[in-house]
Amino acid sequence: MKRYIVGLVLLLAFSGSLCLAQTDQPTIKEDFKPSTLNQPGQEYPQVNSQGYARFRIIAPDAKSVVVSLGLGGRGGTTLTKDEDGAWVGTTEGPLDKGFHYYRLTVDGGTFNDPGALNFYGSIRWESGIEIPAPDQDFYALKNVPHGKAQQILFPSKSTNTSRRAFVYTPPDYDKDQTTRYPVLYLQHGWGEDETAWSNQGHANLIMDNLIAEGKIKPFIIVMTYGMTNDVKIGGLRDFKIEPFQTVLVDELIPYIDSNFRTLSDQQHRAMAGLSMGGMETKTITLANLDKFSQIGLFSGGTFSMDDVNKTPGFKNKVKLVFVSFGSRELENRNGRSFWGGDPKENAEALKKDGINSVFYVSPGTAHEFLSWRRSLHEFAQLLFKD
Amino acid sequence: MKRYIVGLVLLLAFSGSLCLAQTDQPTIKEDFKPSTLNQPGQEYPQVNSQGYARFRIIAPDAKSVVVSLGLGGRGGTTLTKDEDGAWVGTTEGPLDKGFHYYRLTVDGGTFNDPGALNFYGSIRWESGIEIPAPDQDFYALKNVPHGKAQQILFPSKSTNTSRRAFVYTPPDYDKDQTTRYPVLYLQHGWGEDETAWSNQGHANLIMDNLIAEGKIKPFIIVMTYGMTNDVKIGGLRDFKIEPFQTVLVDELIPYIDSNFRTLSDQQHRAMAGLSMGGMETKTITLANLDKFSQIGLFSGGTFSMDDVNKTPGFKNKVKLVFVSFGSRELENRNGRSFWGGDPKENAEALKKDGINSVFYVSPGTAHEFLSWRRSLHEFAQLLFKD
Repeated sequence: MKRYIVGLVLLLAFSGSLCLAQTDQPTIKEDFKPSTLNQPGQEYPQVNSQGYARFRIIAPDAKSVVVSLGLGGRGGTTLTKDEDGAWVGTTEGPLDKGFHYYRLTVDGGTFNDPGALNFYGSIRWESGIEIPAPDQDFYALKNVPHGKAQQILFPSKSTNTSRRAFVYTPPDYDKDQTTRYPVLYLQHGWGEDETAWSNQGHANLIMDNLIAEGKIKPFIIVMTYGMTNDVKIGGLRDFKIEPFQTVLVDELIPYIDSNFRTLSDQQHRAMAGLSMGGMETKTITLANLDKFSQIGLFSGGTFSMDDVNKTPGFKNKVKLVFVSFGSRELENRNGRSFWGGDPKENAEALKKDGINSVFYVSPGTAHEFLSWRRSLHEFAQLLFKD
Repeated sequence: MKRYIVGLVLLLAFSGSLCLAQTDQPTIKEDFKPSTLNQPGQEYPQVNSQGYARFRIIAPDAKSVVVSLGLGGRGGTTLTKDEDGAWVGTTEGPLDKGFHYYRLTVDGGTFNDPGALNFYGSIRWESGIEIPAPDQDFYALKNVPHGKAQQILFPSKSTNTSRRAFVYTPPDYDKDQTTRYPVLYLQHGWGEDETAWSNQGHANLIMDNLIAEGKIKPFIIVMTYGMTNDVKIGGLRDFKIEPFQTVLVDELIPYIDSNFRTLSDQQHRAMAGLSMGGMETKTITLANLDKFSQIGLFSGGTFSMDDVNKTPGFKNKVKLVFVSFGSRELENRNGRSFWGGDPKENAEALKKDGINSVFYVSPGTAHEFLSWRRSLHEFAQLLFKD
């Protein structure tokens, strides 16, 4: 377990630094528009049709203002003060499509951009910016029937408190009181929380749209906080799965099955997660194959034949194994092997052995949320097929 | 309408400035603890047992860092740089109990405190700090059955989009599929949004606790965005009620009644709001007495006999009129008359005339959320009594 986690952290650092090296400088088109993730009425940050981002921060007496972008965001952008006393600057290259966390450094202090909405990542609320993707339609707010996103507080004896979860129920959930639904337990990544899949991930809109298009059988999604071990920065190597496994398996699942109209057998329960949430998914599902039949790891590890062989009942009980990565995560390996082996080769080995194994690569994205929106979109269409 | 709104804005400015004048300087107890509204793991801001707040902001190269607190927060606190390069400072007096919005000015720019959670107010996400109140138990998270807070997206033809609302359903809502519930439509104030009553107001916890204590008949609460007119700073005088009235009465209410198990007659529908939301409540209910029977204005206006006399059917149709203020709002009038007359005298005049009129004053609070948490707590116990 320990090596696996360290590998994950290394991958993060590695793919981030390589993105920085890909800078080029074409002519910047002056068709900048406010980011769709700005606070109401805010003009900045802006994004142009090429994917450049432009920032404008008012701090007339500051000595320096720097924008730090996450993975796929090409590192930092140092702003310069204009005649009005506002600090402005444009990224040196176009950003990867999709969602990026970012933050400001103002005179040595870390702050958020007052123009942008905040999203919980890196164990803090950070600024977010969205670069429109060519396939953004699948997670757009459309005039289709919408499901409900419910916040529940469920009792947790093991942690001696009421814990929060968000539950997505499909549009027709309240119409026909006899229908029961399968359930997907969906986990966020390190430093994020149970708000991530709805806010950054648009999981609810992805589901609404897939259901409206008739592409999936409607199911329930449950999202809760997976860092019950109080994992702080740099502390992933101290991560223990047991506290969260107890909350999820012994407390949350029974609560969901008695408070929602679920199909509560193993055949109709899936689990997936991104990054650290993928690691949690792998560990918890393999230890509880009587409870989960379908498994998704989004940028969060692989399944090898070794995993299969050392898990009694795997072949009988597991109906789907889905593993995905952003293409930049794979590109940036530079010949290094992944923790647990090459994920594509692993996936193919499982398939050859008769396991329903699917491998997906999100084009042009890194260890970021567009990879995971797309992964959910693909994974959802494979779930609960029988 | 116009005069009424200007009066509201004046009151805000007036009560704010008077709070500043009440400074005294007792010994400050060194028992500071992190505010309950801090981001996970953050040590600052802190609050002591007397209600002083202490801030610590890291910005080693900054020239100045000032904390601006809202009403009841005693204005600004200028921080000073300590040996570590962090800016620290303590409020010059204890703050009023309850919730306060605040922001930082760092070298002339407006930022949020990276240590605190953000809350939507003043048409932006602002930092929030909580001073423990002696009666905080009524809005505490307890080991009682919890209702659900649901986010819905309802179709709105008039604004040509899907609009968001939050719906609180009581703990037993999903248990007995035959029970139907009354509904309270509950509005936020100017510059806030549909998240305010849950986040700042703890409306869901107030309801869970009241229901657990058997003090109220369970009901549903619906909260949506009331600034459909895109009211910007200083723009309240341009406020028009019609767009929001259409959304609420013609679109949201029918959606709620067909998607939740409501009692959909006038007897079982109430509306209340704080500040600007009280103004909206008064206007919309008086124009729609066939739809609403119980009305609450929290720091948002009064009902006079003139209002009663000029509204056909008022005495037959209105079963409860509840008007409340924070005590500091009343103290700070300094002999000036309220818009619409003295609220207490008005309330008594209605009572004398046989109307079920209740007037409530929240002790020691200003135009802020502890006044409104308490108002909801009182109002809820008076609702749906027949």
